[in-house]
Amino acid sequence: MNRKLRMGMIGGGKDAFIGAIHRIAANADGLIELVCGALSINPETAVESGRMLFLPENRTYTNWEEMLEKESQLPEGERMDFVTIVTPNFAHFAPAMAALDKGFHVVIEKPITVSLAEAQQLAQKVEETGLTLCLTHTYTGYPMVKQAKQMVKDGVFGKIRKVYVSYHQGWLSKLSEREGNAQAAWRTDPKRSGKAGAMGDIGTHAFNLAEYITGQQVTKLCAALNIVVEGRALDDDGGVLLQFDNGATGVLTASQVTAGEENNLSIKIYGEEGGLEWHQQEPNTLLVKWLNKPTEVYRAGMAFTSDITKANTRTPGGHPEGYLEAFGNIYRNFARTLMAKMDGEAVDTSLVEFPSVKEGIRGMAFIDNVVRSHESNEKWTTFEVSVEHAVVA
Amino acid sequence: MNRKLRMGMIGGGKDAFIGAIHRIAANADGLIELVCGALSINPETAVESGRMLFLPENRTYTNWEEMLEKESQLPEGERMDFVTIVTPNFAHFAPAMAALDKGFHVVIEKPITVSLAEAQQLAQKVEETGLTLCLTHTYTGYPMVKQAKQMVKDGVFGKIRKVYVSYHQGWLSKLSEREGNAQAAWRTDPKRSGKAGAMGDIGTHAFNLAEYITGQQVTKLCAALNIVVEGRALDDDGGVLLQFDNGATGVLTASQVTAGEENNLSIKIYGEEGGLEWHQQEPNTLLVKWLNKPTEVYRAGMAFTSDITKANTRTPGGHPEGYLEAFGNIYRNFARTLMAKMDGEAVDTSLVEFPSVKEGIRGMAFIDNVVRSHESNEKWTTFEVSVEHAVVA
Amino acid sequence: MNRKLRMGMIGGGKDAFIGAIHRIAANADGLIELVCGALSINPETAVESGRMLFLPENRTYTNWEEMLEKESQLPEGERMDFVTIVTPNFAHFAPAMAALDKGFHVVIEKPITVSLAEAQQLAQKVEETGLTLCLTHTYTGYPMVKQAKQMVKDGVFGKIRKVYVSYHQGWLSKLSEREGNAQAAWRTDPKRSGKAGAMGDIGTHAFNLAEYITGQQVTKLCAALNIVVEGRALDDDGGVLLQFDNGATGVLTASQVTAGEENNLSIKIYGEEGGLEWHQQEPNTLLVKWLNKPTEVYRAGMAFTSDITKANTRTPGGHPEGYLEAFGNIYRNFARTLMAKMDGEAVDTSLVEFPSVKEGIRGMAFIDNVVRSHESNEKWTTFEVSVEHAVVA
Amino acid sequence: MNRKLRMGMIGGGKDAFIGAIHRIAANADGLIELVCGALSINPETAVESGRMLFLPENRTYTNWEEMLEKESQLPEGERMDFVTIVTPNFAHFAPAMAALDKGFHVVIEKPITVSLAEAQQLAQKVEETGLTLCLTHTYTGYPMVKQAKQMVKDGVFGKIRKVYVSYHQGWLSKLSEREGNAQAAWRTDPKRSGKAGAMGDIGTHAFNLAEYITGQQVTKLCAALNIVVEGRALDDDGGVLLQFDNGATGVLTASQVTAGEENNLSIKIYGEEGGLEWHQQEPNTLLVKWLNKPTEVYRAGMAFTSDITKANTRTPGGHPEGYLEAFGNIYRNFARTLMAKMDGEAVDTSLVEFPSVKEGIRGMAFIDNVVRSHESNEKWTTFEVSVEHAVVA
Repeated sequence: MNRKLRMGMIGGGKDAFIGAIHRIAANADGLIELVCGALSINPETAVESGRMLFLPENRTYTNWEEMLEKESQLPEGERMDFVTIVTPNFAHFAPAMAALDKGFHVVIEKPITVSLAEAQQLAQKVEETGLTLCLTHTYTGYPMVKQAKQMVKDGVFGKIRKVYVSYHQGWLSKLSEREGNAQAAWRTDPKRSGKAGAMGDIGTHAFNLAEYITGQQVTKLCAALNIVVEGRALDDDGGVLLQFDNGATGVLTASQVTAGEENNLSIKIYGEEGGLEWHQQEPNTLLVKWLNKPTEVYRAGMAFTSDITKANTRTPGGHPEGYLEAFGNIYRNFARTLMAKMDGEAVDTSLVEFPSVKEGIRGMAFIDNVVRSHESNEKWTTFEVSVEHAVVA
Repeated sequence: MNRKLRMGMIGGGKDAFIGAIHRIAANADGLIELVCGALSINPETAVESGRMLFLPENRTYTNWEEMLEKESQLPEGERMDFVTIVTPNFAHFAPAMAALDKGFHVVIEKPITVSLAEAQQLAQKVEETGLTLCLTHTYTGYPMVKQAKQMVKDGVFGKIRKVYVSYHQGWLSKLSEREGNAQAAWRTDPKRSGKAGAMGDIGTHAFNLAEYITGQQVTKLCAALNIVVEGRALDDDGGVLLQFDNGATGVLTASQVTAGEENNLSIKIYGEEGGLEWHQQEPNTLLVKWLNKPTEVYRAGMAFTSDITKANTRTPGGHPEGYLEAFGNIYRNFARTLMAKMDGEAVDTSLVEFPSVKEGIRGMAFIDNVVRSHESNEKWTTFEVSVEHAVVA
Repeated sequence: MNRKLRMGMIGGGKDAFIGAIHRIAANADGLIELVCGALSINPETAVESGRMLFLPENRTYTNWEEMLEKESQLPEGERMDFVTIVTPNFAHFAPAMAALDKGFHVVIEKPITVSLAEAQQLAQKVEETGLTLCLTHTYTGYPMVKQAKQMVKDGVFGKIRKVYVSYHQGWLSKLSEREGNAQAAWRTDPKRSGKAGAMGDIGTHAFNLAEYITGQQVTKLCAALNIVVEGRALDDDGGVLLQFDNGATGVLTASQVTAGEENNLSIKIYGEEGGLEWHQQEPNTLLVKWLNKPTEVYRAGMAFTSDITKANTRTPGGHPEGYLEAFGNIYRNFARTLMAKMDGEAVDTSLVEFPSVKEGIRGMAFIDNVVRSHESNEKWTTFEVSVEHAVVA
Repeated sequence: MNRKLRMGMIGGGKDAFIGAIHRIAANADGLIELVCGALSINPETAVESGRMLFLPENRTYTNWEEMLEKESQLPEGERMDFVTIVTPNFAHFAPAMAALDKGFHVVIEKPITVSLAEAQQLAQKVEETGLTLCLTHTYTGYPMVKQAKQMVKDGVFGKIRKVYVSYHQGWLSKLSEREGNAQAAWRTDPKRSGKAGAMGDIGTHAFNLAEYITGQQVTKLCAALNIVVEGRALDDDGGVLLQFDNGATGVLTASQVTAGEENNLSIKIYGEEGGLEWHQQEPNTLLVKWLNKPTEVYRAGMAFTSDITKANTRTPGGHPEGYLEAFGNIYRNFARTLMAKMDGEAVDTSLVEFPSVKEGIRGMAFIDNVVRSHESNEKWTTFEVSVEHAVVA
């Protein structure tokens, strides 16, 4: 490939947090250039955002339907290669389906959709079109998460027995959705966010991280969700007991009312011979514990990390990478995969990988199953991945 | 009081871990002297242990019945004031009852007994005799745990909403009870340890810590216990969802198979305005988190700690105290209380306090309720504190 | 400005560590695009590197003289706006002078040159041309370093009294320059690196950080340099006692033979009322200490940070930024300044700032004075910033 | 030995910080009992302190001369075995000499005396009498300091090259000695404290720790002392460049004006293959760093620590020990040594050791050499251990 990939963006106008994050992540490695956008449903914001991003006027669209239409009519050497969708959850499905229909590859901010049914339709569309869909489950992009996964896979801890994963934030400790906080407003609104609040917004990240590192799938769960802040429409907190298919058990907690916490996603996993501990807020360190040896401090960028870790690291040891680089890894791996595909070449998927529809479906199913368990008096709910079992919101 | 208190000891012979801990804790502040002991059920060990502790031969007993009898016949100026019972769990009840009957105050290593019924009988005996019983729930003896409790009580965090408490060890990751580990052998034996394993041994500490700091009581729980290591007779791991009487919810996990963990008891508590975090392995630090201010690092020995914190600290800031001092605080507070009582004086219970039968009964009830919940298919089990509800082991 | 700034690059071919870093930093915010390069003195490498970066063939140059010449002949709407120089130290001066002569702004990797004399000539050239020069002293780009500087400036700690700064790496613990390590080879070679080794390579960063945060200048110093690894041509380790112009004193240590350290740059500063502590390897945390209050944990992205901190942060609290974002801040601030300049507008220099020739001269003077002190038997050497005092290498 | 050792105490009355510390340390292991004391130069305080400690009236003395005289006349089975001296520095020498003359073993709080001359006389007296003197350099009593020393001795790091040791406190940030702080008053008074302030009070601890762990001796130094707080009579801060006899170099800093620090004694040592890092405020952790392996976290109480570490640990891993246990190790090792001596037996000095006159003399020489270097304009001062070289205060 002798050029950068061309990206269009739906959503992510000038005041949107996650749009800017996606752009930085996409920019960093010089593999992708932003060529067009339908950056806001507000036309003025769309235009102003396009100008701030130096987009040409004629490719600054004011609605995504127009963008998909117009871009699809541009010659191949000019039109965008893929579209990134960074709208609120409820507005993922329609543009994703339409983009695939027009032949564009897709990147979607998680969660993939607002329902398992949508996720499954989207998965089918991806399969039919043969196009590539990337779901930005950021946290699995961290080098030390890759290292953790590799060590578990290599069996150094023996059989995995225990998983503790928690994702604690404090930003919804007050009823901010009534006080003009736009982020809070849509994320606590079932119409825009889906049938779960905290459990959907961040619980799914915790769930994804646990399944990613262990390589195991949850088979049963027991969930208790809470609306801690009076007046809120969706859960802002919850705890889930987990059973995994290899017999391991675990606990997942997610909360957006743990006042004073920032973005504290942490995981501990234990096997027969040792375990590991990782904290997203200090992401370059992976603590590796052993039954009869000193705990080891694995660090990103060091010579002793695994190949996939190195393939997802940009700086030498002690030059900390962070959230944007983890996000960038997803874009970089997506870009390399796409470039290879367009060139008719293969990538080494043991080094270059990113979340896609499979993770999207597991995440949507997690939400369904958690809500179903919460509403049940039975202790254990079997984890189902089919639409029939889904609770109607 | 113009003399030290005189302590006798039942159990705690030369190879016993916890007996040595009790002696160091009792010695440290120069308020207590060991005057006699029935230190082992093995007569040779009892005698040799007495000699190593410089006990007089005639007060080195080979069974506790004899000790209680003989000591009770000594003149008041000479006989022991209280007895410390550090035998395995199943052997707490009988000597404690007998000691109270003979008029001796009692210190018992936790758990108080092996059943709720025993605990309640013991409580009644304490009430009848008017004597003092101290239960060494060590971890509430730490200065920064006192600080945490005081801050919650003072309302600085607003209403408490969330409690996460975990107690993780790795020493039972293998089937050590079959490999000659005496500690492992009795602690995993239902006959000697009681109806719960990890949940009784360490889960009760986590439970006690949570109720102590929050000042709230658990009202409902949902427990899942596991025997992770094949061939073990009691749970070595478990997770419990909690509801508290003020509406707060929480999660308690206890495990003795988290390979690579030492003695990792940690607690996080959150209210409307902020929260706190404490780790037993670095006990002199209490992290205090706030919604809109930087996290504060409270440290033992500093001028800004509360009165009860200071009353339970021996050294200035930066001179770390540890487990033995926390244990020593329980002994010191017990000793001061007893001395005041014997002198007909009062102590300031807002500064000088220690766990007793109330905590013992809550702990035994916790074990009962956890086991009952584990065996139930219903999600929530109401926390009962009466013998009728207890599961028969 | 309705377009991105156009960057050319000298050095930084495919195997160069620092070139890639500069490109990521320049790319991230979408304000700059790489349009041309003379990426290596090896023509093949230059060409191949250009292709990997999707540069047009006709702007992939094989020597920097040609690049400056050709670019200067392009029309204004096309030619590069500035050039980034990422060659080894000895090859900074000539292209920087030439670029300024051709009317291009300049970014230089630190140290600015290999001698104070060169640095001063360059400064004069910048002044004469009215062009902008940016020196990438990365570490002052971190948000929490900005926070630290602001708090000192605001006087919250009272008069600053003590400064401890250390920069410890382990990568030169062996004689790697003889074992094919190209980085080690040029950095330990006086001809390419300058008259100091570790003290020039990393000691200057520590020095810059200390002067930046305190707002004070070193006036006297006492240095002891060491060649720890036998056979090495330049110092790989050293310690320096410091005096500052406000009467504060300090200690600076720099070492590349502290085996097991990665890139451990740390600083502690104390005033009359408190102090601060920052570690580059966990850069989002700034510990703020007080005489009579708990230590406070300031964190990047939080609402309570200063305006300049916020202006140099991209993500909300708990989404860690790192080395590349710190580097990116320097580029972003440089770009904003340049864009404003080209548009005839002003930037708010209290929020948008970056290191330049002043810092470059201080750094070169630091090297001179440290070497001069090392060679002297007198305890204190006055810090001179003039060429006459410089030691001849 | 079939009884506890009998201790007398000089100084350490009811308001004295260090006296209480010594008593807790001596009590903890049940090897020592306090039998008499001359606890204050104020007779009322002496008597009241004796009563609070339950000392018999006839062995509660009001001056130490009387105590030594009376105790020496008691029968062997009753009189004290050793005396602990916890008076301010200037009042160590006389009672120590007198006690040795009367045949009592001696424990002295550090620094051993107020001058090198005194220290050398005392050393000679110890040699003449054959009695045992113990100097409580607390910090070498920590298990992980023993572990550090052992690992260095075992050569796992190769030749030691670098030593960084710092001891930072903030409690003298203000002129507290003029505001009724008794501790501050005598410690900043040359008449009572000696010729150095911070460098004597805490710098000697840092020096002792560095020589203890490395097994190397300082041969040259370059010191800069500061009186940071105006009006103070002695240095409250200083930095020292060090050279060791094996060619290693180092930096020692000591400050009592680093506002916000508690008792931050930290050391980092590096050899050819790796290094170690220890912080007194979290004393159960020893970080062990390697050139090409992950950092290892050694923890007190774990199976993988060395024999001498285990011999100086009381609790299993994760049950933190602290300052009082480190202090207790010195007393316990002293007691075991004395008991063995009195029984005509030998102790294994590879496991049972404590600081004595040798360390006392090194410490006094350190003070002398630091002050001499400070007053010199020459960069390097040779470390001399003879009275002739001492500066007259």
